[in-house]
Amino acid sequence: MPIPTDHVGSPSGNKEEEAIKPAMSANDNDHRGLLPAGLADLLPPDAAREARAIDVAIERFAAFGYERVKPPVVEFEESLLGGPGAALASQTFRLMDPVSQRMMGVRPDMTLQVARIAVTRLKHVERPLRLSYGGNVIRVRGSALKPERQFAQVGAELFGVDTAEADAEAVLLTVDALRAIGVAELTVDLNLPTLVAAVAGGLKLSGEPLRRLRRALDRKDEAAIAKALDDRKAIDLFVGLLRAAGPADTAIAQLKKLKLPAAGTAEAARLAEVVTLVHRADPDLPLTLDPVEYRGLEYQTGVSFSVFALKGRQELARGGRYSAGYPEDGVSEPATGFTLYMDAVLASSDATSERPRLYLPFATAWSEAAHWQDKGYAVVRAVTAAADTRKEAKRLRCTHALIDGDAVPL
Amino acid sequence: MPIPTDHVGSPSGNKEEEAIKPAMSANDNDHRGLLPAGLADLLPPDAAREARAIDVAIERFAAFGYERVKPPVVEFEESLLGGPGAALASQTFRLMDPVSQRMMGVRPDMTLQVARIAVTRLKHVERPLRLSYGGNVIRVRGSALKPERQFAQVGAELFGVDTAEADAEAVLLTVDALRAIGVAELTVDLNLPTLVAAVAGGLKLSGEPLRRLRRALDRKDEAAIAKALDDRKAIDLFVGLLRAAGPADTAIAQLKKLKLPAAGTAEAARLAEVVTLVHRADPDLPLTLDPVEYRGLEYQTGVSFSVFALKGRQELARGGRYSAGYPEDGVSEPATGFTLYMDAVLASSDATSERPRLYLPFATAWSEAAHWQDKGYAVVRAVTAAADTRKEAKRLRCTHALIDGDAVPL
Repeated sequence: MPIPTDHVGSPSGNKEEEAIKPAMSANDNDHRGLLPAGLADLLPPDAAREARAIDVAIERFAAFGYERVKPPVVEFEESLLGGPGAALASQTFRLMDPVSQRMMGVRPDMTLQVARIAVTRLKHVERPLRLSYGGNVIRVRGSALKPERQFAQVGAELFGVDTAEADAEAVLLTVDALRAIGVAELTVDLNLPTLVAAVAGGLKLSGEPLRRLRRALDRKDEAAIAKALDDRKAIDLFVGLLRAAGPADTAIAQLKKLKLPAAGTAEAARLAEVVTLVHRADPDLPLTLDPVEYRGLEYQTGVSFSVFALKGRQELARGGRYSAGYPEDGVSEPATGFTLYMDAVLASSDATSERPRLYLPFATAWSEAAHWQDKGYAVVRAVTAAADTRKEAKRLRCTHALIDGDAVPL
Repeated sequence: MPIPTDHVGSPSGNKEEEAIKPAMSANDNDHRGLLPAGLADLLPPDAAREARAIDVAIERFAAFGYERVKPPVVEFEESLLGGPGAALASQTFRLMDPVSQRMMGVRPDMTLQVARIAVTRLKHVERPLRLSYGGNVIRVRGSALKPERQFAQVGAELFGVDTAEADAEAVLLTVDALRAIGVAELTVDLNLPTLVAAVAGGLKLSGEPLRRLRRALDRKDEAAIAKALDDRKAIDLFVGLLRAAGPADTAIAQLKKLKLPAAGTAEAARLAEVVTLVHRADPDLPLTLDPVEYRGLEYQTGVSFSVFALKGRQELARGGRYSAGYPEDGVSEPATGFTLYMDAVLASSDATSERPRLYLPFATAWSEAAHWQDKGYAVVRAVTAAADTRKEAKRLRCTHALIDGDAVPL
């Protein structure tokens, strides 16, 4: 699913713990080195950490049969911003294509591109179709709180099937990938952003009362619900929905007690089924429910979820059910999927795999490198002669130096 | 070094041997699926192959102490197009940044960004500084022969040292990475694009005679050299340079016989030293020399090279010595590096690692997946019930199905 425009990213570019310290002098603000707000260089070791985490995630997706696709960074705005992409139009940089004389956009999101591939070039491939992707997206503006305008987006999408098993797979695969990256204790918050609409539709609520109800639910304000509606039964129902939040088991039990209209009952039953499937697969995974939450989930058409790290409570991933395609063209198919927010993921993961650096003195045979690389060293070959091997090795941030045929720690 | 604007790429997006066949019906030209000329979707398995090859290359660079950096896809045109970047100005898409009200460019090349990082943020880090990078670049126009406008660019750069050892390391690391990716028989063509200028300068050649000489050398036309110049000694010298091409050993011997002006002698000596170092490290690597070639190498300031696959004679990589920084600001340091042309690399590599796909029937426990993944399968979980397990597994392109606890080949 697309990264919502309200996503809070944590900057990962300029950390203090960088192995290579960036220049901090006054000339650091050299006009050539200045980047636009919200766009950053990732320096060592952050760039390698990010790339490694993306690889690990894509590898887990592949282990579950998700095949990688790679859409271009730029494409026609008509395909980029069709269907649910319209919501991102104001966040998309436009370019005039001198070849076609048509407008192109720099992708603000990759999910929509993957959905385009699924419903056009891969439309004749049997369903379910499982695709994965990883790449960078650009947004026109950040905000004061979250200035980032470039995000690394990694995710997986399952097209063509609308079942609880598919919904559960999206949740479980998100968790699997995050754990593989090295994010420990996770918690999943399940949402059903279409439930309120289904219940309100069943009760024939619309116009101003519905708007007031939405506001009351957003603020989790029971008294305001009572004020928004005049039907006692309706009030009890929505207060009941509001209270059906928290740990999944009790919340589902609460939800089942409510006398929902038919459409709402079906939605709630699907949610309960997904909870059962996720619990069965992973009994220790903390699951919470918030069935009235829908902000930032306008794009979703069914069971949705966010994954958090218990530590820090940062949102690491978001996913859920949506409709892939271009409804305005009559092209649409059920889909579910998720996106990992790599900046938050890396901030929550301890994984580093800095390898020891071995200095090979000047004129060491090239063939010597392979021997030490096989032992796990990165070798740093001298390309100039140096009088003092140890001193030179230290100057080059090496942990070891090759002295008399041995890797000597420094 | 930057991908030259004349680089011939081989399209890798639309191969017939794709595991997933793209839709071929008339509606395939559905307006939503249409991409701008020169921009393509990579479908399975090509996207995964490309990503894997990039990983392998970056891993080889890391084994030699090259640390990854990741500049943003978009930055101010002033930094992007300063220094040697000016040559790419007409190939760069521009965007107005609403935040700073300044013009930004979508990167047409990553080397220049990496050089920017080296001479600004990392300017106080000890030299030699070794950096690597991998990412996508966008060009405004392709050409009729080579329509691609997006390239995956992967490379490594060594900053701050101007020695033959550093030049040789660039050649040897290129070859190492290409072999690791799975490109077999390689050949390296060495160039010295500054040699003709050095010799011509020593002989005080300029103006029209120099231009005519350049044209004659470009066409490898000995008679035209004689017509361009009137000094017999100069004619013999440039004809000698022209003939000092071919297998490195004989070409170097030929070059050493020539009585070059001092500046030319120093350049030729460096080239000979690089040949010696590369030969010593890898005696079986075919090395050829073309010391008068300079087309497409205007950016280089010393020993340069191209790597080809013996089969197909496609250019797989290009590299060489250049000056990093912004000479117009008085910021400059010696550098060498290289770029792999991933489209050509993938066309020349046989590496595939399609894993067997195992169908897990509906309601198979989630925990079952890990067992089979450990054995090397990608598992494809059923998310809908199916009457005939084998038929359903085949429909989903699986090679195996889990039947009675066994992975049964289909």
